[in-house]
Amino acid sequence: MSLKRKLRYGMVGGGPDAFIGNVHRMAASLDGTMELVAGAFSSDPEKSKIQGELLGLSPSRSYPSYAEMAEAEAVRNDKIDFVSIVTPNHMHFPVAKTFLEAGFHVVCDKPMTNTLEDAEELCQLVQKHDRVFALTHNYTGYPMVKQARAMVLSGKLGVVRKIVVEYPQGWLATPLELSGHKQAGWRTDPKRAGAGALGDIGSHAENLARYVTGLELEEICADVTSFVDGRIIDDDVNMLVHYQGGAKGVLHASQISIGEENNLNIRVHGETGSLQWFQEHPNWLYYRALDGPEQVLKRGNDYLDNSAKHNTRLPSGHPEAFLEAFANIYLNAGKTIAAHLSGETPDPHDLDFPTVQDGARGVHFILTALMSGQRRGWINAKYTPPT
Amino acid sequence: MSLKRKLRYGMVGGGPDAFIGNVHRMAASLDGTMELVAGAFSSDPEKSKIQGELLGLSPSRSYPSYAEMAEAEAVRNDKIDFVSIVTPNHMHFPVAKTFLEAGFHVVCDKPMTNTLEDAEELCQLVQKHDRVFALTHNYTGYPMVKQARAMVLSGKLGVVRKIVVEYPQGWLATPLELSGHKQAGWRTDPKRAGAGALGDIGSHAENLARYVTGLELEEICADVTSFVDGRIIDDDVNMLVHYQGGAKGVLHASQISIGEENNLNIRVHGETGSLQWFQEHPNWLYYRALDGPEQVLKRGNDYLDNSAKHNTRLPSGHPEAFLEAFANIYLNAGKTIAAHLSGETPDPHDLDFPTVQDGARGVHFILTALMSGQRRGWINAKYTPPT
Amino acid sequence: MSLKRKLRYGMVGGGPDAFIGNVHRMAASLDGTMELVAGAFSSDPEKSKIQGELLGLSPSRSYPSYAEMAEAEAVRNDKIDFVSIVTPNHMHFPVAKTFLEAGFHVVCDKPMTNTLEDAEELCQLVQKHDRVFALTHNYTGYPMVKQARAMVLSGKLGVVRKIVVEYPQGWLATPLELSGHKQAGWRTDPKRAGAGALGDIGSHAENLARYVTGLELEEICADVTSFVDGRIIDDDVNMLVHYQGGAKGVLHASQISIGEENNLNIRVHGETGSLQWFQEHPNWLYYRALDGPEQVLKRGNDYLDNSAKHNTRLPSGHPEAFLEAFANIYLNAGKTIAAHLSGETPDPHDLDFPTVQDGARGVHFILTALMSGQRRGWINAKYTPPT
Amino acid sequence: MSLKRKLRYGMVGGGPDAFIGNVHRMAASLDGTMELVAGAFSSDPEKSKIQGELLGLSPSRSYPSYAEMAEAEAVRNDKIDFVSIVTPNHMHFPVAKTFLEAGFHVVCDKPMTNTLEDAEELCQLVQKHDRVFALTHNYTGYPMVKQARAMVLSGKLGVVRKIVVEYPQGWLATPLELSGHKQAGWRTDPKRAGAGALGDIGSHAENLARYVTGLELEEICADVTSFVDGRIIDDDVNMLVHYQGGAKGVLHASQISIGEENNLNIRVHGETGSLQWFQEHPNWLYYRALDGPEQVLKRGNDYLDNSAKHNTRLPSGHPEAFLEAFANIYLNAGKTIAAHLSGETPDPHDLDFPTVQDGARGVHFILTALMSGQRRGWINAKYTPPT
Repeated sequence: MSLKRKLRYGMVGGGPDAFIGNVHRMAASLDGTMELVAGAFSSDPEKSKIQGELLGLSPSRSYPSYAEMAEAEAVRNDKIDFVSIVTPNHMHFPVAKTFLEAGFHVVCDKPMTNTLEDAEELCQLVQKHDRVFALTHNYTGYPMVKQARAMVLSGKLGVVRKIVVEYPQGWLATPLELSGHKQAGWRTDPKRAGAGALGDIGSHAENLARYVTGLELEEICADVTSFVDGRIIDDDVNMLVHYQGGAKGVLHASQISIGEENNLNIRVHGETGSLQWFQEHPNWLYYRALDGPEQVLKRGNDYLDNSAKHNTRLPSGHPEAFLEAFANIYLNAGKTIAAHLSGETPDPHDLDFPTVQDGARGVHFILTALMSGQRRGWINAKYTPPT
Repeated sequence: MSLKRKLRYGMVGGGPDAFIGNVHRMAASLDGTMELVAGAFSSDPEKSKIQGELLGLSPSRSYPSYAEMAEAEAVRNDKIDFVSIVTPNHMHFPVAKTFLEAGFHVVCDKPMTNTLEDAEELCQLVQKHDRVFALTHNYTGYPMVKQARAMVLSGKLGVVRKIVVEYPQGWLATPLELSGHKQAGWRTDPKRAGAGALGDIGSHAENLARYVTGLELEEICADVTSFVDGRIIDDDVNMLVHYQGGAKGVLHASQISIGEENNLNIRVHGETGSLQWFQEHPNWLYYRALDGPEQVLKRGNDYLDNSAKHNTRLPSGHPEAFLEAFANIYLNAGKTIAAHLSGETPDPHDLDFPTVQDGARGVHFILTALMSGQRRGWINAKYTPPT
Repeated sequence: MSLKRKLRYGMVGGGPDAFIGNVHRMAASLDGTMELVAGAFSSDPEKSKIQGELLGLSPSRSYPSYAEMAEAEAVRNDKIDFVSIVTPNHMHFPVAKTFLEAGFHVVCDKPMTNTLEDAEELCQLVQKHDRVFALTHNYTGYPMVKQARAMVLSGKLGVVRKIVVEYPQGWLATPLELSGHKQAGWRTDPKRAGAGALGDIGSHAENLARYVTGLELEEICADVTSFVDGRIIDDDVNMLVHYQGGAKGVLHASQISIGEENNLNIRVHGETGSLQWFQEHPNWLYYRALDGPEQVLKRGNDYLDNSAKHNTRLPSGHPEAFLEAFANIYLNAGKTIAAHLSGETPDPHDLDFPTVQDGARGVHFILTALMSGQRRGWINAKYTPPT
Repeated sequence: MSLKRKLRYGMVGGGPDAFIGNVHRMAASLDGTMELVAGAFSSDPEKSKIQGELLGLSPSRSYPSYAEMAEAEAVRNDKIDFVSIVTPNHMHFPVAKTFLEAGFHVVCDKPMTNTLEDAEELCQLVQKHDRVFALTHNYTGYPMVKQARAMVLSGKLGVVRKIVVEYPQGWLATPLELSGHKQAGWRTDPKRAGAGALGDIGSHAENLARYVTGLELEEICADVTSFVDGRIIDDDVNMLVHYQGGAKGVLHASQISIGEENNLNIRVHGETGSLQWFQEHPNWLYYRALDGPEQVLKRGNDYLDNSAKHNTRLPSGHPEAFLEAFANIYLNAGKTIAAHLSGETPDPHDLDFPTVQDGARGVHFILTALMSGQRRGWINAKYTPPT
């Protein structure tokens, strides 16, 4: 990589009460390859300013709005290289559009947009302006998820038959949004979140299954529920899924499964072998062949695929976790941005991050699942985003 | 219990190559309360005779057919008290009917029958002849399953919202039935088995969920598949389920999930707490309340419910497993039979075994799920068996 | 096996309040190959009689004392084939001696005796009278323990370097013996138990390590403690151990480790691989080679050693546990006794049970560890029992 | 905290091939509160310069030696606030001494020194120059370790009786040092490492037990071994330990336990409860009381102690791991250094990092264990470092 300096980035969203903004900042800073230099951290200019101070930014680069930030940064010599968008969901689209049109590369939280039209417009903008766009489906950043993908794609499991992917949480089992909890507030508000469990975590589950197996959905039959009294948005979803090539499966996500913290997990069963992975114990991957003992593959070992090794920082037994996986999205996207800035071709491993097309697929999935739930039946789920 | 002798029982099925017959015999003999004295172990009289010899039976009580056995035993002074039916599924009905009409109590393997008409006729015969009928849904014999049931029924979890019950196996991931494997042979033959994964293990999953929560199904939407080339019968099923009272969930069962051995497991999520149990590690039950740490309840401890204690033999840490759970069906049914023979009222704990009505419910579930799969949609699953 | 009948056995000990007597009876009856026909169940003749009734024995064979039982049985035509001794430890020797001298085969609980002299006399009596003697170090009856042994002895791990064997329990963390608890009473009484944690469970740990690795002790350095106020006997022991051939390790056992139930476990590390096994999850065995993923070997699979298969009853995923392991001691010893009665040579697999020499080694270990603890230092632990 | 800027630090050691240097840098940068501005990364000036370039340092601050670095930095206006020492063990002392005498605060890897004299001199220098000194016993940085400590110190377990602490690894099971492996090279060289398994990881085990329980050692009896042919330094150590107040236990550490990656773990058994924690699954802590089910405490929950919450960054279920724990040492030490620079009193939670006295205790432990191994017996292990 011939860019001889750290990347500079700005952030939209991620104010004092936000959870995910700080996660993005830690992920971005972990490897010492990029630094935060600008931000519009809140729709409240005062809060944005305070957050900028806490983060040690130059006061001139704590902006009162994302629009002013895009405009001002675009004309600086030391302008940001990319923007990180960590707002509630409904703001992803206008912010991303604004920065893409201002010529910036983008890292954006998921789900990408609340409508498919917006998602497809972003695809087109990325194409038109030739920018790097990374969507933080962070769970695909785990090394052992990459190992799983490598094993499936190399044929180690044979033709995939069954996929079970789950994302149970329990934190919204009570009407937490009524107590002034900021996270719960916007995530259960249809205007800001779009969808509930389906958008927040169901989309991660779909993305994980697609990433690991390389398989697109063909049709789904969803059962979408709001369990908590007074909640409009879904907080639980179960669905039957069919993938291209004949694989079938189950996808379920929940925010009312008490005792579950963040238990994203996946099982892939092929004609000759199976895999299983749990996000809460992410350094281990279980592989079972038709014959022979179960194998427990552990991060950091020589026997792993290069894609896993490329995304690991610590020796085996020194556990990595959520932040390192998240940081892999930033690290790989950052290297790709740096290559772009230097006019170089990025290392293929550096291109291993979720794209704007992944984002559009996720939006299509969410909307299709909601529609299936309303119709109480199977529904076509095939989709090809603009490229 | 005033019956001063061991119970005597006969067996139909359970010849030399059978798996489940030997399980029944070990389960029956574990506690030293009953002894096998007669049998029609095979449709091949010669095999039946050989098996009787191996088991140390009197030659006169190794019968060439179940019909002859019922007839001959009925007139003996030392006749059997009950018959244990461990044939392939399609023979459960004629054998059970024959023995009920000959006045015998019955222990029968599951699924009970291949048609609902047969199942309902058995319900009526049990009622008419006032016999004890126990169905070996053995997984409900585990003490920690009884603990789970006690906790749900006592309201410890609040209103149940979500139930996830799984029964993955992998042993039929290849066309094992083509290799002369006896078990695989009849279990994949629609004439003898009725249904495949759905009947063999899906019915256990449904029964387990119903036993633990006390909830009946309202509607289901099933996806039923035969994955292995040339196999007619289902070897994988995924379904969305709605229970009475508003609980929703997922039930899936599979015989093609490589690496899974016999991983029946259940999660029940209520408004105030959750439970999780795994058949392969059956001595532990996980309980999570809205607040506070997860709890791991372990078999054999004072803090457990009496229903769990009543069905346990060993101190904590001395693991019990499959055979003890199976034996609990025999032990409880046997005590109920003994009470019947003595004209006594059985201890309520002894009545804790699956009944002929449970069998009819299971048959209805299997047939409804098959129909849902054919129709590709939601289908009413409510059912009340004759009593 | 040409013995065409069930074996007949009698029991000494195992009265109404005993724990281990019922375990022995369930283990003996599991396979339907032997039946209990006589007993001296208690030092209190009345209790012995009541227990005999409860167990359905002929009243004439519920004896008031073991001595009368040995004398009376010896002259019956249908006399017992063997005696099962399940008394407190101090009675093992006189009972075993009496029955050996009366010509009976013996199954005896552990530790075998309280003195080395007694242990060695039993070795000599077994030899002199040519009887079968099985000691119920039941944990070596687990199939996956046999698998571990097969792997170590076949050289799969290379030369053994390190052995860590643990047996933590917590049930005596309080002075339970002061509350009238029968089990706690005799097990903490030096006169009846000999040693405490060391004898009751430390001896299992030593036996397990020896069985799995085939290695004898060379020297030990023990730290023996009575933690609970007022308790004379040891309730916790930690020791450094050296085995023949250069292996080193740690052995610790405890009855005051709160929360531990019966967590016997072992790790064996060789020059080229390692094994780990836990009694509380006994169906799985962990194997790690120098290279490659960890392997989880699971009971019931084709890839296991014949010694494991020979001692298994159920298919994989249908967990076996404590009773089946215990029953393997009875089953193998029973087959060996039957062969003896028939004048046949037993199958080598049937000889796989702990012997009187194992018992003498265990007694030597206990006494040596106690001495090391008193001397606060390393002590020679080599020992060869009479054969 | 009134210091309005990031802390500046320099690094000694941590060249291109080093493992731990990069860990320190990631840990330091995670929270965005400090930046690396200077370094003497290698004893080879050319390598130091290259590493400085890779890390984006100003060329003038990539020093050819630590002595030049200390001298040059001391007179800069923008001098480093502290130095991070990540060299092989034998260099810790001269580097730390040099920087302390030049007025810098110090973060130093462990074990602190190879001799007790050096360790005590560092204690005195820290005192004399009133500097902050943090030793990276990083495993005490885990939130759930802090939770364990809070529970023990608050009396939740009652008086501690037994402590089992283990640190097994397998990476040195073969003579890796003969293959040119840099890490293996210096860690098995007595001149550079001082001790082997004992120093590298045994010292972590001792520190962890002391941190969690607050108990000092009284006496130990160690068995110290070099298993691998040709290796001079210890690669395995087992020891019996006595703590003040009557607690006893076992401590063992190994680098030849094949298949073990970095399995530091601890069990603490008190009179009324027990705790267990595993470094490889660091977000969970197991608590068992005398009565009631086992509890699994999970990082990120409200029910945890403030000391755990103070050292956590992510919500429950979003696993934290090794780097976050390591970063907690840097974050807390950094806040303490910042308070020192600002003339403020640090928050008591910020003082929660290992000190120079912890380092001296660790050195004393290592040397005492080596001596006990040589003498083959118990040895006094009491020690009070200079303060």
